[in-house]
Amino acid sequence: MTTDPLVIFTPSGKRGRFPVGTPVLTAARQLGVDLDSVCGGRGICSKCQVAPSYGEFSKHGVTAREGALSDWNSVEQRYDDIRGLKDGRRLGCQATVQGDIVIDVPPESQVHRQVVRKAAAVRDIVMDPATKLLFVKVQEPDMHEPSGDLERLAAALRDEWGITDVHAPLPVLTKLQKVLRKGNWEVTVALHRGSLDGRHQVIDVYPGFHEGRIYGLAIDLGSTTIAAHLCDLRNGQVAASAGVMNPQIRFGEDLMSRVSYAMMNPGGEVEMTAAVRAAINDLTVDIAAEAGITPDQIMEAVFVCNPVMHHLLIGVDPVELGQAPFALATSDAMGLPARELDLNRMNDAAQVFILPCIAGHVGADAAAVALSEEPGKSDDLVLIVDVGTNAEILLGDKSRVLACSSPTGPAFEGAQISSGQRAAPGAIERVEIDPATKEPRFKIIGSDSWSDDPDFGTPQITGICGSGIIEAVAEMRMAGLLDDKGLIGSPDQTGTSRCIVAGRTHSYVLHDSTADGGPLIAVTQGDIRAIQLAKSALYAGARLLMDEMGVDHVDRITLAGAFGAHISPKHAMVLGMIPDAPLANVRSAGNAAGTGARIALCSVTARRDIATIVRQITKVETAIAPKFQEHFVNANAIPHATDPFPHLASVTTLPSVSFNLGGGGSVDDQGRRRRRARK
Amino acid sequence: MTTDPLVIFTPSGKRGRFPVGTPVLTAARQLGVDLDSVCGGRGICSKCQVAPSYGEFSKHGVTAREGALSDWNSVEQRYDDIRGLKDGRRLGCQATVQGDIVIDVPPESQVHRQVVRKAAAVRDIVMDPATKLLFVKVQEPDMHEPSGDLERLAAALRDEWGITDVHAPLPVLTKLQKVLRKGNWEVTVALHRGSLDGRHQVIDVYPGFHEGRIYGLAIDLGSTTIAAHLCDLRNGQVAASAGVMNPQIRFGEDLMSRVSYAMMNPGGEVEMTAAVRAAINDLTVDIAAEAGITPDQIMEAVFVCNPVMHHLLIGVDPVELGQAPFALATSDAMGLPARELDLNRMNDAAQVFILPCIAGHVGADAAAVALSEEPGKSDDLVLIVDVGTNAEILLGDKSRVLACSSPTGPAFEGAQISSGQRAAPGAIERVEIDPATKEPRFKIIGSDSWSDDPDFGTPQITGICGSGIIEAVAEMRMAGLLDDKGLIGSPDQTGTSRCIVAGRTHSYVLHDSTADGGPLIAVTQGDIRAIQLAKSALYAGARLLMDEMGVDHVDRITLAGAFGAHISPKHAMVLGMIPDAPLANVRSAGNAAGTGARIALCSVTARRDIATIVRQITKVETAIAPKFQEHFVNANAIPHATDPFPHLASVTTLPSVSFNLGGGGSVDDQGRRRRRARK
Repeated sequence: MTTDPLVIFTPSGKRGRFPVGTPVLTAARQLGVDLDSVCGGRGICSKCQVAPSYGEFSKHGVTAREGALSDWNSVEQRYDDIRGLKDGRRLGCQATVQGDIVIDVPPESQVHRQVVRKAAAVRDIVMDPATKLLFVKVQEPDMHEPSGDLERLAAALRDEWGITDVHAPLPVLTKLQKVLRKGNWEVTVALHRGSLDGRHQVIDVYPGFHEGRIYGLAIDLGSTTIAAHLCDLRNGQVAASAGVMNPQIRFGEDLMSRVSYAMMNPGGEVEMTAAVRAAINDLTVDIAAEAGITPDQIMEAVFVCNPVMHHLLIGVDPVELGQAPFALATSDAMGLPARELDLNRMNDAAQVFILPCIAGHVGADAAAVALSEEPGKSDDLVLIVDVGTNAEILLGDKSRVLACSSPTGPAFEGAQISSGQRAAPGAIERVEIDPATKEPRFKIIGSDSWSDDPDFGTPQITGICGSGIIEAVAEMRMAGLLDDKGLIGSPDQTGTSRCIVAGRTHSYVLHDSTADGGPLIAVTQGDIRAIQLAKSALYAGARLLMDEMGVDHVDRITLAGAFGAHISPKHAMVLGMIPDAPLANVRSAGNAAGTGARIALCSVTARRDIATIVRQITKVETAIAPKFQEHFVNANAIPHATDPFPHLASVTTLPSVSFNLGGGGSVDDQGRRRRRARK
Repeated sequence: MTTDPLVIFTPSGKRGRFPVGTPVLTAARQLGVDLDSVCGGRGICSKCQVAPSYGEFSKHGVTAREGALSDWNSVEQRYDDIRGLKDGRRLGCQATVQGDIVIDVPPESQVHRQVVRKAAAVRDIVMDPATKLLFVKVQEPDMHEPSGDLERLAAALRDEWGITDVHAPLPVLTKLQKVLRKGNWEVTVALHRGSLDGRHQVIDVYPGFHEGRIYGLAIDLGSTTIAAHLCDLRNGQVAASAGVMNPQIRFGEDLMSRVSYAMMNPGGEVEMTAAVRAAINDLTVDIAAEAGITPDQIMEAVFVCNPVMHHLLIGVDPVELGQAPFALATSDAMGLPARELDLNRMNDAAQVFILPCIAGHVGADAAAVALSEEPGKSDDLVLIVDVGTNAEILLGDKSRVLACSSPTGPAFEGAQISSGQRAAPGAIERVEIDPATKEPRFKIIGSDSWSDDPDFGTPQITGICGSGIIEAVAEMRMAGLLDDKGLIGSPDQTGTSRCIVAGRTHSYVLHDSTADGGPLIAVTQGDIRAIQLAKSALYAGARLLMDEMGVDHVDRITLAGAFGAHISPKHAMVLGMIPDAPLANVRSAGNAAGTGARIALCSVTARRDIATIVRQITKVETAIAPKFQEHFVNANAIPHATDPFPHLASVTTLPSVSFNLGGGGSVDDQGRRRRRARK
C-alpha cells in the first residue's frame, strides 16, 4: 500500500496516501482537511473547489506530474459551461487522485475560515455557524414501506452527512411535502445545530440546490440603543448594520427606573417586553430591507444584553434585579424559537440564542465582552470597561478574571446634561480649550473641521454628545476653569467672560447662537455634577475589582462600548474615569459586546466556550460592597482625591486651582440631596 | 453485618438487611420496592404510607416484634394531628428499622399501581405518567455565588430526585421567581418527562407543598366526533369524559371529501385546522368545568387520530394523503408544547403527545388500538376492526401483525341513511323482526323497553342510528324481507304491507307516525345499498389481510370503536361485515383507540412501546391492492357471495329468497354509478 499516491493539502500541510481513484474531497475528509461541501459531492455546489499544484516541491519532498489528478469529467465540464470555474480550479468531489499531488484549499473553500478579525487582532474567529445549508437526495415514499417525508429526510441527513437527532418545527412540516415534490426529492436544508443540546432543527427547506444566502442577526440589546449586525452565515461578513433607540426609554431612562416602573405599575413589565420586542421586529425589517434580503433568509438571532434587558426580553418581571440579592430568574444561556419571543419578522422557524448572564448586575453583554476580549487569556493585567448607561467592568489575566457592573447612569451618553443630546449630526463631539485664552474650539458630528477653521462654515450646532461632554469637562480642568472638587470658577476667578453666572453657580459657554435664535450651549455646574457621579461610579467599580485582585494599578485598559470608541484616553484619565495607566496602553475595543455577539453568531464553539468562561469569572457585587461608597466619594475629585496618577502626570500637569466659595457643598452632599428629591 | 435486621416488603416479596435506624423509604428505594414519595422524605406528602405487620411469619421465616420500627416521631405526630393517619399506618420516610419486620405497601402508596383495567382484562396498565409532582427545597440566591433561580431549582431536582436535563419554558420562567419566594424556597414542581427525548420540562410550579391534583387529556380525534377523557395523573382515574362533533364535518363528511376540500379551496386546510383546534379548546373548557377543575390543572394531552385528522391537527395540508403513494408528512410520534397547536385552554406550558401513524391510511388511532389490544401478544389469530367513518383493521398473533384501513364511509354511523341520525335519545338502536309476521319491534336510546312493551309509552321517535340500521338490515335478511343480493322484496313477495313501493324499489317501514305529524321511519333500498358498500369495504379489507397472512379464517374478532360496543356480533356476521368465526369469540373492546390514548397518557413506557409496535406492524395498502376490488364485489352479497359462514350457519339459517326483478342492477353497478355522479 506504500505505493499509493501521496496527497498533500496546503495550507494545512496535512498529508496521506490514497488509492488511485480516490476523490480529492474524500481524501480531504479522511485527513480532516477543512474543505467545504454543501451538495455532498454531487458537483452542484462548487464549494469544494481546490487548486492542484504541479511540479517539484522539495519542501514537501514530492513531485506532482501532469495527470496526477483525473481528467475533467462531464460533471466538471457541465459546471464550467454553465457557471465557469476559475483557471486552475477543480471540483474536489469530481477530481480523483492518480499520482502524487499537492492540493491547495483556497480560503473560500474552507468552512472554518477566519472572518471576525478584530482591530487589535488579539485573535481571529473561525466560521462554525449553527445554521448551515445542506443538499440531500431524499428517498421517495413507498406505499409498501410507509414512512413520513420528514423521517426520510432525516434518514438522508444521517446517511449523507452523518447527522442524527433531526427535528422539524411545525412551520417546516407544513411546507415540507410541497418542497420535496417541487425539488423532485432533492432539497437543500437549512439545518440548525443547538449549541446547548446538540439537537438539529430544520429551519427551512428549499427545492433542489439552493443558491440563496442565509443570514443571522447579532443583536446588542442595550438600555438606550438596540444595535444589530446582519451577518452572512456562510462567511461571517456583515451585510448590514442598524440601530434604533430602545423604546423602553419612555418607561425610564436607566435600568433601575425601568425596574421601578415594573414595581409601581402592575403589568408594566409586560408593556416593556412588548415594546422592546416590537422594536426588534421593526429593526429586523429595516435591516433586511437595507441588505436587500427577505426576512425568511434570517435563520437565527444572537442576543447580548444586561440582566434587566435580558429579563424584559424573555418576559420576566425584573423586580428581583432591583434589590439584593439581585437574583436572576435564569442565568444560563438560552436557545429557543424566535416565535416564542414574538420575534416574527425572521424566518418562521428562526432560532434565538441568548448569551448567559454572569450575575444579577453583570449580564450577557459582559459575557460577550469577555468572549471578544478574552481577559482570561491575557499575560498582563487588563481592565476592560464597557461604558454605557450601566458600566460593565472586567479585570483579569490568565490567573483570574473578576467582573462587576456599576450604575453610571446615562450622563456619559449625553443624557441628564443641560445641552446633552444623542450622538447625531450637529452634536459637539470633540472640544479643546486654549489654556491661555480659555477660548474653546470644537468639532461637530458631520463635519471634519474644527470650529475655528474657515472651512467650518455655519452649520447647525444642536448640542453636545457623550464624548463631547467628557472632553469639555476634562479640557475645563486642564485649562484651569474647573477645580479638583469639580467647581466651575467665576468670570473673575477664571479671567474669562465665557464663565457666566448661573444662580449660585457658574457655567462655561461653549457656543452661543442665541442671537440667531439658536441655543446657548454651555457646561453647567449641574452637568459637572452629573459627570462626576457617573465617573465616580465607574472608577469605584474598577477600584473594587483591583482591591479584590490585590493590586493598586493595572497594566492596560480597554474601553469598550460603541461610545468607548470615541473617548480620548487622555481626557478619560484627566477626568478620573479610569485608573492611572500608561496612556499608550489605553485603547478602544469598539463595541466589544457587539463583537462578542457576532462571534457567538458565527461559532457554535464560541457559544460553548462562553459557558465555561462565565463559570470561571468571579463576580463582585458593587451594590453591597462596604468599600464602594468610600471609593465613590474619593473618586468625586477630578481626577481623584487620594489615588496618584503618575502616568497622567508625566504627560500633563493639571493647574492647582480652587473655586470653593463655601456654598456649593460636596458632590457627595449633592448626590444625597438628589436621592432625597427623587423620593 | 448479617445481624442487621431483615426487612420484607409485601406484596412484592422484596427483602434485604438494613442497619438499625434506616428509614423504611430508604430501604424500599434500595430494594427497588415501588413506594411513592412527592416530598422527598420530609413527612409532608404522606404518599409513602406503609402498614407494618407484627407477629410470626413462617412464610417469610421471620418474627416481627413490637418495637421493630422506631416509635412515632414528632413529624408523624404532627401529620396525624393535622391530617390523620389511618390506623396501623406509618410514614415510610419517618419510621426507621429497629428489628426484623414485614412491611406492606398499600396500593395507594404504589406509584406504579394498576389502573386502566380493561373489560376483558387482557392486561393491566401501571401508572408511569409523564408529568409528576415533586416537592423540593431550593437554595436561596447568594450574591457572592450568583446563579439563576431556575438553575438552583434544577440543582435541587438533581440533588433530591436525581433528575437531570431540566428545562423551563417561558410561561414557567415568568412566574418562577414569585412562586419560589412565596413558598419560602420550598416549591412543588409539575415536571414532565418527554418520552421521545428524555428531557424534563417544568410545566408548572407551586409555592410550598402542593395539595392540588394534576390532570391529562386523552383525546380520540375522529373524523366525526372528538372524544376526550380527563384523567387524574396520580391514579389514572377518569374525572370526566366529554365528546363533541368534529366541526370539520361542514367541510366534508368523510376523510376524502375533506382532502378534496383542501385541494379545491386554497387555504382550506388552514380553515379546517383552525376549526378542529377551536373545537378541542371548547371541549377542554367543558370537560374541565364538568370535573370542577381549572384549565391550568391540565398538564398534557395525548392524541390518537387517523392520518388526515393528524395532519389537519398539526396544520399540514392532507393533500398527499388523498393520492398514491399516500405519503405522510411525518409518521413518528410527536411531542410538542400545546401552545404550538394553539391549544391554549390548558396549562400555558402543557405538553402534547401525538401517537405515531402506521401508514398514510392507517393512523395513530390504529396504533392506539394496537397499544390497547396488543394483537402482537395474542396466541391465537385475532382480527380487530375499529369501526368508524374509516375502518382500521388489524390482524395478527405473536408471529406477525398486519394493518390496513378501509374507507367504509359514514353509513355505519347513521349518515347517508334516509332516516339516519346520530346516536341520541329518540334514535332506534335495536331492531327485531318476527320471521312469521314480519312485524318489527325496536328499542330507542333513552328507553329500556321494547316498542311492543306496554311500558314503552309514546316517546318521540326521531330516526335510526348506526347500530339500529345494522340490526334492521340483518333482521330483514333473517326474516326473508331481503335477499342475499340486498334487494327488498315487494309486498306480494314478502307478504307484508310493511314492504312498500318506492319508485322502482321497495322500502320496509319500521315506524310510521305520519298520522301524528311525525316521521315515517323506513329502511329504503338506498339505505341497503349504503350499508352494503360500507360492509363490503370493511370485509374486503379484512380479507386482504387474511390473504397476506395466508389464512381463510380467524380465531377471534374484536369490534372496537365507540360504536363497536353497540353492534350485535350475530347481526354483524349475518350482514357479512366480518368474516365467519365462532360467535362466542366475537367481542366488543369498546373505544379501544380511546383506551390506547388513556394508556399512553398514563404511561411513558407505553409511549415508548408504541414506537416499537408500530415499526413491527406490516402495512397493507387497500387502495392499490389488485384483489381489493374482487373481495369488495364478492362481499356485496349478504352475508357473502362465495365465502362460507359455517359458524353462522350453526346458529341461524338464512332464508333462501330472491327478489331480483332485473331492474335493480348489481351493487357494483350502483357503486360505479355513484362514483360517476360525484365527478
